[in-house]
Amino acid sequence: MNLILLEDRDFISPDRVRLQDDRCRHIIRVLGAKPGDTLVCGRKNAKIGTGLIVSENMQSVEMEVNLDQDPPAPLPLTLVLSLPRPKMLKRILQSLASLGVKEIFLINSRRVEKSFWDSGVLLQADIERHLALGLCQARDTLVPRVHLKRFFSPFVKEELPELGRNKKRILAHPKAHSFCPVGLNSDTVLVIGPEGGFIDLEVQTLVNKGFESMTMGPRILRVETAVTALVSRLFT
Amino acid sequence: MNLILLEDRDFISPDRVRLQDDRCRHIIRVLGAKPGDTLVCGRKNAKIGTGLIVSENMQSVEMEVNLDQDPPAPLPLTLVLSLPRPKMLKRILQSLASLGVKEIFLINSRRVEKSFWDSGVLLQADIERHLALGLCQARDTLVPRVHLKRFFSPFVKEELPELGRNKKRILAHPKAHSFCPVGLNSDTVLVIGPEGGFIDLEVQTLVNKGFESMTMGPRILRVETAVTALVSRLFT
Repeated sequence: MNLILLEDRDFISPDRVRLQDDRCRHIIRVLGAKPGDTLVCGRKNAKIGTGLIVSENMQSVEMEVNLDQDPPAPLPLTLVLSLPRPKMLKRILQSLASLGVKEIFLINSRRVEKSFWDSGVLLQADIERHLALGLCQARDTLVPRVHLKRFFSPFVKEELPELGRNKKRILAHPKAHSFCPVGLNSDTVLVIGPEGGFIDLEVQTLVNKGFESMTMGPRILRVETAVTALVSRLFT
Repeated sequence: MNLILLEDRDFISPDRVRLQDDRCRHIIRVLGAKPGDTLVCGRKNAKIGTGLIVSENMQSVEMEVNLDQDPPAPLPLTLVLSLPRPKMLKRILQSLASLGVKEIFLINSRRVEKSFWDSGVLLQADIERHLALGLCQARDTLVPRVHLKRFFSPFVKEELPELGRNKKRILAHPKAHSFCPVGLNSDTVLVIGPEGGFIDLEVQTLVNKGFESMTMGPRILRVETAVTALVSRLFT
């Protein structure tokens, strides 16, 4: 944990927090921090700074916090991702949070296994836990928003055009002929298919909505590798 | 599996293979392929093409193969990576193989846990299995070479200078001031530290050997995310 993520409920006064959960155990056992030590802290959806440990025991850690820096800039990206298998989704949520992606739509498509939608990973609390791990890793506090869209057609036809208005619209597609740009660094909606790809009809629907089909080359990557590779290459 | 990786021992004649292991089960059960179907195949460290299934039963699949295309070009990269924790290493080996990295040095450094060196993942057979998964994913046949270097100083002082001769030498370091280049696309040796980073002395040793310390920005990424992000950004 490179940052201790503070919730509003942790604050017992404007500049003092008391932690009594996993973070308390992490500070004591993993970081081995003692009273007088300072740690990097950040308040959820707010500023970053330091926390000076003023007291600790196995049940509780109290810190005086001084939060005066902005978190790293968010990426100007809306990511639309076919729901990956649950085990992979956990890691992808962490990676996306650490990379600075703030708008994530998880959508259905033909090759998404129906059972994935019943996974516990999609419970709000679980999603938030994995996002928090990514934020703590990257020293960020701005919690990404994750939207679940169980029906491909209504989402792509009714919501996606609005999301993509005045933005670069990219469909990552291994079979495409044009190459994915590098260092685009402007407002973008990026759509990524499931393992096995979108079916032709889905590709056509997206192309009809103004998405340009683009490849990173002849190599077909696992979704979790492709997500990081694409984000890292588009925003430099 | 986007490609069936063929070993020399699979060939029962110059253009015919017989598979009797996991690949046979994969072809029948997962791909649901039948006699008359063709699959993308490639011979280890050689060409890629198609395999026409001529017979199958639950114990064996025979294919007539026609391998006439080159595998995708390797990246001009030598990756030097502090040994990650075993569970992460499996995924990293797969990702690196799928991204086209062909020279991988796993090295020790101060913050690498000693126990990682005793992991079964480092057995040659296990390494090869994870690399093969990455190659099959990316439709590649060229097996990366993985070198294990248990001692930091002798490796960095005696072997690394030779490896880096006439190449761009980059040390990925979150605290660096210069930014990691994008689309470098030339011969490069890239060094990546462990979770928690190299200690100052190690950084200094690498800098003394001509490595330029470079960052991707204020976000600290997990090693597996950083590896993919760096490779994807350097080679476009």
